[in-house]
Amino acid sequence: MTVIALLQLDPTVGDIAGNVAMVEAAAAKAAVAGAEMAVASELVISGYPPRDMLMDERFVSACEAAAMAVNSPIPLLIGTPLSAEKDRQKPFNGAVRVADSRTPKVVGRKQLLPTYDVFDEGRYFQADDAPGIDRSLQGVSIGITICEDAWQHIGEVPSDYPADPIEQLATWQHQGEPMAASVNLSSSPYHLAKEGVRARLVRKAASTLGHPFLLCNQVGGNDDLLFDGRSIVGWPEGTVVQGPAWCSGILLVDLEKPEAARWISLDEGEETELQIVGPESEPIMPSKGQDLLSAVTLGLADYCRKSGIGKIVLGMSGGIDSAVCAAIACQAIGPGNVLGLAMPSRHSSDHSIEDAKATAEALGMELQVLPINEIHASVDQTLHDELENGHSVAKENLQARIRGTLVMGAANARGAMAIATGNKSELAMGYCTLYGDMNGGYAPLGDLYKTEVYEVAHAINENSKPGNPITESTMTKPPSAELAPDQKDEDNLPPYTVLDPILEDWIELGIRNDSPLTTSVLSRLHANEHKRWQLCPAPRVSNRAFGQGWRQPLASRR
Amino acid sequence: MTVIALLQLDPTVGDIAGNVAMVEAAAAKAAVAGAEMAVASELVISGYPPRDMLMDERFVSACEAAAMAVNSPIPLLIGTPLSAEKDRQKPFNGAVRVADSRTPKVVGRKQLLPTYDVFDEGRYFQADDAPGIDRSLQGVSIGITICEDAWQHIGEVPSDYPADPIEQLATWQHQGEPMAASVNLSSSPYHLAKEGVRARLVRKAASTLGHPFLLCNQVGGNDDLLFDGRSIVGWPEGTVVQGPAWCSGILLVDLEKPEAARWISLDEGEETELQIVGPESEPIMPSKGQDLLSAVTLGLADYCRKSGIGKIVLGMSGGIDSAVCAAIACQAIGPGNVLGLAMPSRHSSDHSIEDAKATAEALGMELQVLPINEIHASVDQTLHDELENGHSVAKENLQARIRGTLVMGAANARGAMAIATGNKSELAMGYCTLYGDMNGGYAPLGDLYKTEVYEVAHAINENSKPGNPITESTMTKPPSAELAPDQKDEDNLPPYTVLDPILEDWIELGIRNDSPLTTSVLSRLHANEHKRWQLCPAPRVSNRAFGQGWRQPLASRR
Repeated sequence: MTVIALLQLDPTVGDIAGNVAMVEAAAAKAAVAGAEMAVASELVISGYPPRDMLMDERFVSACEAAAMAVNSPIPLLIGTPLSAEKDRQKPFNGAVRVADSRTPKVVGRKQLLPTYDVFDEGRYFQADDAPGIDRSLQGVSIGITICEDAWQHIGEVPSDYPADPIEQLATWQHQGEPMAASVNLSSSPYHLAKEGVRARLVRKAASTLGHPFLLCNQVGGNDDLLFDGRSIVGWPEGTVVQGPAWCSGILLVDLEKPEAARWISLDEGEETELQIVGPESEPIMPSKGQDLLSAVTLGLADYCRKSGIGKIVLGMSGGIDSAVCAAIACQAIGPGNVLGLAMPSRHSSDHSIEDAKATAEALGMELQVLPINEIHASVDQTLHDELENGHSVAKENLQARIRGTLVMGAANARGAMAIATGNKSELAMGYCTLYGDMNGGYAPLGDLYKTEVYEVAHAINENSKPGNPITESTMTKPPSAELAPDQKDEDNLPPYTVLDPILEDWIELGIRNDSPLTTSVLSRLHANEHKRWQLCPAPRVSNRAFGQGWRQPLASRR
Repeated sequence: MTVIALLQLDPTVGDIAGNVAMVEAAAAKAAVAGAEMAVASELVISGYPPRDMLMDERFVSACEAAAMAVNSPIPLLIGTPLSAEKDRQKPFNGAVRVADSRTPKVVGRKQLLPTYDVFDEGRYFQADDAPGIDRSLQGVSIGITICEDAWQHIGEVPSDYPADPIEQLATWQHQGEPMAASVNLSSSPYHLAKEGVRARLVRKAASTLGHPFLLCNQVGGNDDLLFDGRSIVGWPEGTVVQGPAWCSGILLVDLEKPEAARWISLDEGEETELQIVGPESEPIMPSKGQDLLSAVTLGLADYCRKSGIGKIVLGMSGGIDSAVCAAIACQAIGPGNVLGLAMPSRHSSDHSIEDAKATAEALGMELQVLPINEIHASVDQTLHDELENGHSVAKENLQARIRGTLVMGAANARGAMAIATGNKSELAMGYCTLYGDMNGGYAPLGDLYKTEVYEVAHAINENSKPGNPITESTMTKPPSAELAPDQKDEDNLPPYTVLDPILEDWIELGIRNDSPLTTSVLSRLHANEHKRWQLCPAPRVSNRAFGQGWRQPLASRR
C-alpha cells in the first residue's frame, strides 16, 4: 500500500510565512489521515504567479530557505522558486523534498516554461534539462514534473518543446529506475471546459509510464488568475479520480486502490464531491453558469481577502451586469459589507430603480439612491460651450463619469473598493466609459461575454430560491446604457447573441471570417484597445482573455 | 572604397505599407548619395515592438512577404518578422537582403532574445543558433547581427546567454570568411546615459572583429517605448561616428575613411550634428534636461501622429507638471491644437490661475477657466452623509475627479486626447487621484521624477527665450496639490530631493537601504501599485521604469 496526499491549497502571492503555515498544517493533517507522502502545488511557497517579485533575488532566496525549513512528519514535495547558481541567470521553478528526519533537498526543476497567454515563465525562470525524482519512500521512487512539463506529452499547448519529460521518465524507468508513481506540481489556471483535457493528460501520462500519475493543482484567485483546483489522478488502465473544484482540501489516494480515494476538506461550507470514474467515463462538470459563478465569486473573495479589502461599493443601474455583480459581491464578502448606489439621471427609466431596490433587498445589502440630476446640470452648464458644438458622445459619457465619481467618493469615504460592473462584450466594443463605469479596483465580469452573464444570473437565482436576486424584469428587458432617451445597446451594437460568437472566435480562438459584420466588429474592437490598456484586473475564465497580451495600446495601425 | 548607409527611420507599429514606403524612399536616396549597400533597423517592417500582432501568423507572413518585395537599387538589409517553419513554433526576428537584380533572401535570424525590462522577445520569437552573413557586395562579406546579439560581448545586459554571436563571427572570419564589416540591426530603446555604453559596444565589437562595426538604430516613439536613434559606427582602433538623436536620416559611412562620414537628414527642422570622435574621446551628450525634453516631445508627437490624434486637452493647475506638459504638447502637435483648462476650486490659490494664463499665453495656446465650485458643492451635497463620516481623502479626491471629468468632457467633445500631467515620483507614492488627474491617454511625464521635471522646465525656457513659458513663480513655489487649505506636497511626502534618489535607487537599480525613511517610502510605493496597474502609456526614459513588470496588482503582500 502506498498512500499519497495531494495538498490542494490557496496560497497568497508574496505571503511566504502564511503559505508555509498553510502547507505545514495540511501536511500534518495528511499524515494523521494515513498519508505516507504529500505533494503540494507549483510555487506554493511564493504563490502563483509571483511575477516581478522573482526579479528580486532576496525574494527568491527567502522562498527557497522557507521551503527548505518546512516541517512535515512525512516526506513532502513543495513547489518553490530556487535561486540561480550564477550571476545574470534567472531562478528556477523547482520542487524541494522535506521530511521529518531527512535533510531537505531540491528534487526537481521545471523543464518546460510556458511563455504565452497568461504565462510568462520564460521571462522569470531558466529551464532545467531533465525531470526530477525522489527516493524518500522505502524501495519506491517517485517521478517529478512541474505543470507544463507534462503537457508536451499530449501536445495540447500552443508551444512545441524540444523535450518531453514524461518520455524521459519512461526512459529512466526502462533503464532500471522503477517508480511507484509520478507526480505533477501544478498551478494550472481555470479554463472553461479544460477539465476534459486534464483527464486526458493524466490518463495518457499514466499509460505511458505504466503507473499512476498524480496532478496536484493550486486553487483560488491571485490577482486576475483563477485556479479551479480539481486535482486529478489517472491510472494506466484509465481510471480517474478528480478532487472538488473551488475549495481547499487534501486528496488522499491509495495508489493500488483508486476506489479508496478520499477528500479531506479544509474549507467550511458546501462543496462538490470527489469523483471516481472508470476508463470509459469523464468527470461530470456543473453547468457552465454554475461553474462560472463559482469561479468569479472565489476570484473576488480571494482578491479582497488577500488584499485586506473588507468592503465593496458598486453602482446599480437596474441592469443585469450590476445585479449579478452585487450578488457576487454579497456572496464573496457578505451582504453587510456591500453598498450599492442607484444614481438615476434624467434618462433613467422608472423600472431601473425598482429593479435595483428589489435586487438589493433580496440580497440583504444596503442601497442608496443618489439622483445625479443636479450635478449633471451643473457640469452641463460648466462645459456648455464645449458640449454645444462637440460630439454627442461627450454628453453621454458625462453621466457615467459623474456616477464613477460618486462610487469612488463613497468607496474612499468607507475605505472600500469600488468594483467595475462591465462585461467582456461591451469592453471589447468600447461600449463603456473610461473613468466612468470602468472605475474600480476589480471587474468581476470582465472576462464574461454578455450571454455568459445571463447564464451566471440564472445560476444565482437557482441557488437562491425562494426570492430571486435577479428580477424577472432585469432578466428580460433589453440591455441599455440609459445615457440618452430610449437608448438600447442594439442601437449601437449587434444583438449579443450575434456579437458574442464573433468576439469569442477571434479573442479565444484567433479565427475570423471576412463578412462585413465581422470586419466591422473587429475593427471596432481594435480601435478600442486603448480602453483595455487601462483596465482594472478581471478574473480570467479562459487562457486567451484580455490580458497582458491584449493590452495593445493606441499607437498602432492594422 | 565601401560606402554603407544606415537608415535611421521612425516606423509605425503595424503599418506595413507605410514602413515599406519609408524604407524604399530612404534606400533610393542612399543610393543616389553613393551608398553601395544600405542597412535598416530591427523589425522596421512591422515597427518595434509589434507585441501580440506577432501571435497572428497572417501578420507575420504579411511582414515577411512585404520585406521580400521591397524595391532597392542597392543591396539592402531589412529587419522583419519571419514565419516559423513548423506548427506550434514561434516566428523569427530576422533580416532579409533585397537588391535590384538579385533574388531576395533571408540572411540572418536573431540569436539572443532579450526577455527582461521592456523586452519580451522570448514570448514572441524563437532563437536561431548562429549570426548571419551577406555576400552580395563583390568580394566582400558582411557579418549580420540583430540588436541583443551584440550585447553579450560586453556583458552589459541582465541576462547571461550561452552564445556570443560576435565571437562566432570572429571565428568564421578566422576560418576563412573575410568580412569588410559587420552590422547590427537595432531597436535599442532610449536609456538615460546609455550612449556611453553603445560607443563601448561598437568599439569592442570592431576591435574583436578587426573591422568596422555598424549599428543602425530605430528612432521615434511607438506606444510607450522611445528610441533615440544615434546610430553609431566603431572602428577597430577606436574611432566612433555617431548620428544625431531624435530625428530620421541616413548615416553614410565610408568604411575606409571615418572622417568622411555624412548625415543626410530626412526630417525638417533643426537637429543635432553628426559626431566623429577619436579613440580617446566620447560622443558629447546634450544636458540631461534637453535630452529628456527631446525624448518626451518626440514620444508624444509620434503617439499622436501614429494614432491619428490631432488635438490635446489638459488640465492646467499653475503647477510645474502641467506647465511642462503644455509646453511639450504645443511643441508636439502645435499650440493651435492644444486646449488647457484651468479649473479653480475653493482651495486654489490666486497665483495658480495667473501662472496657468501666463504659460498659455507664452505658448500661444487656448486656455479656458472653468471654476468647479458649483459642481463641487453639488457633489458634496449628494455625497454628504458618506463624506461626513468618512476618510478625509475622499473629499480631496472629489476635486481631482471633477476636473478629470471636465477634461475628458472637453476632449470627447473635440475629438481630442486628454493627457495626464503626473510625474513618476507622485505616481510611485500614489500621490495622485485615480480617475482624476491620472485621466488621459498618455502621460508625457510619467517616467520622469519630479526633480527631472524641473530640469526639463529649465530646458524649455532655455529654448524659448525671450518669454519663458514656465514662469518664475511656477518654478519656485512649493509643489502643492491644492486639494485642501494651504496643502503642500511636503506635508505628505519627503522633499523631492530626498524622495527621488530613494525611488530611483529602488526602481531603476533595485537597491535599497534599511533606513526608516526608505522603508516607509517603499512600503508606500508597494501599497500604491494598484494605481499603476491602470496607468496610461508613458514614454520610457529608462529600461527599468514602471511598466509591464511593475504592473504588480493588488492581491499580493510583501
